[in-house]
Amino acid sequence: MGSDNKGKKQKVEETNKSEDQVDAELVLSIEKLQEIQDDLEKINEEASDKVLEIEQKYNEVRKPIYDKRNDVIKSISDFWLTAFMSHPALGELLTEEDQKIFKHLNSMEVEDFKDVKSGYSITFNFNPNPYFEETKLTKTFTFLEEGTTNITATPITWKEGMGITNGEAGKKGNKRSHVDESFFIWFSDTQEKEDDLLHDEVAEIIKEDLWPNPLTYFNNEADDDVEGEEDDDEDKGSDGSDDDEEGDDDEDDEE
Amino acid sequence: MGSDNKGKKQKVEETNKSEDQVDAELVLSIEKLQEIQDDLEKINEEASDKVLEIEQKYNEVRKPIYDKRNDVIKSISDFWLTAFMSHPALGELLTEEDQKIFKHLNSMEVEDFKDVKSGYSITFNFNPNPYFEETKLTKTFTFLEEGTTNITATPITWKEGMGITNGEAGKKGNKRSHVDESFFIWFSDTQEKEDDLLHDEVAEIIKEDLWPNPLTYFNNEADDDVEGEEDDDEDKGSDGSDDDEEGDDDEDDEE
Repeated sequence: MGSDNKGKKQKVEETNKSEDQVDAELVLSIEKLQEIQDDLEKINEEASDKVLEIEQKYNEVRKPIYDKRNDVIKSISDFWLTAFMSHPALGELLTEEDQKIFKHLNSMEVEDFKDVKSGYSITFNFNPNPYFEETKLTKTFTFLEEGTTNITATPITWKEGMGITNGEAGKKGNKRSHVDESFFIWFSDTQEKEDDLLHDEVAEIIKEDLWPNPLTYFNNEADDDVEGEEDDDEDKGSDGSDDDEEGDDDEDDEE
Repeated sequence: MGSDNKGKKQKVEETNKSEDQVDAELVLSIEKLQEIQDDLEKINEEASDKVLEIEQKYNEVRKPIYDKRNDVIKSISDFWLTAFMSHPALGELLTEEDQKIFKHLNSMEVEDFKDVKSGYSITFNFNPNPYFEETKLTKTFTFLEEGTTNITATPITWKEGMGITNGEAGKKGNKRSHVDESFFIWFSDTQEKEDDLLHDEVAEIIKEDLWPNPLTYFNNEADDDVEGEEDDDEDKGSDGSDDDEEGDDDEDDEE
């Protein structure tokens, strides 16, 4: 009996020991695995850096071509207005008032920061216009180390009775001026809201989709016209005409 | 009068002419713009090629480290089963039967094709097991020029009464064998369904998320253990012990 008990106890001890061994081996293996993952992480970072270098280089290559493109675009009346309006997502952002303002949009510029990874800016160059004093509006997204994004935007100095977006206090009681959905509300909003991804969404659509090939969207509009050639009230009315501001113009000839 | 009429007519002609001119200029500008977009496209392709070269190079650098990792992983019992089960998306894919089979999974391999861009393969190396004859199951995704993907998978030769996935006809009326949601149904399905993205979704999660760092998922499981330290029947039962190969096991110990 006694020896039986002893044997049992020893057996238990042995089992414990081998369990401890298994645990120790497991811990060791996991540590080894962690080291390997760290090595892989380093290699991945190095690869990312090399890819960034490529992107930096090609941004330099693209720059003069984008400049040339800007020159050509300037010769096409309402190019950016049309491209924005024909874009499935961006078109919804422009109120009727915004569309009138966009008729004065002369050129655009989307630029990565030199290092590509730390941010980018979107610049709208306007002709002198009846709406605001500035001719260059720039919105800048700076990616900070802690994973957040710092956003800045040129403050817009709206002319008398023209806008409500220059600061919360700017509301002038003018019903026809900018409402919440205005593109310029988006532009002027520099608050980082964790749960509001709209900022980056709009900026990213402009940067990744519109800017690389605005002609596809501009041509879309032309395609739409061909399809529904007759009903020009529907599209052209909301699209280009200033009818309640200075009289109509745009697609139909002014006199 | 005659000269008046003449003058009017001429005016009309001039208007028409200038409209035509505007149209001609617009067409010209759009053509120029298209050329510029084509140039940009070429530059973008060149940039993509350079990025691919980097990825190819770094795949070569990673290869021996992944091989080393495979060796370490082999020393951790049920590593892949645990990593799969602890992954928020992949865990749902493994039926109870699959989990028993995954206990025989010895190693994995995810490999881009040499050129990186034309496809990749996922290989599961099993120990000899009571379920199927093969020890190496490979699923391959080949991206074709026309934008489709060709999918192949090692045909599984299920042992007597063990599976229903080897061909539609394989159903043996065995209720406890593989049901529709089985991982091996996913594995064996090589049909390209335009509206079914599940294929690629599972493969891409394995390739882009699990494979680069399975240890995070494996550790997730360990974290869960720490939280509910006492109830080790629950996790460790399925985790480390081989106690009931063909009997029941898993989450709860049924008797």
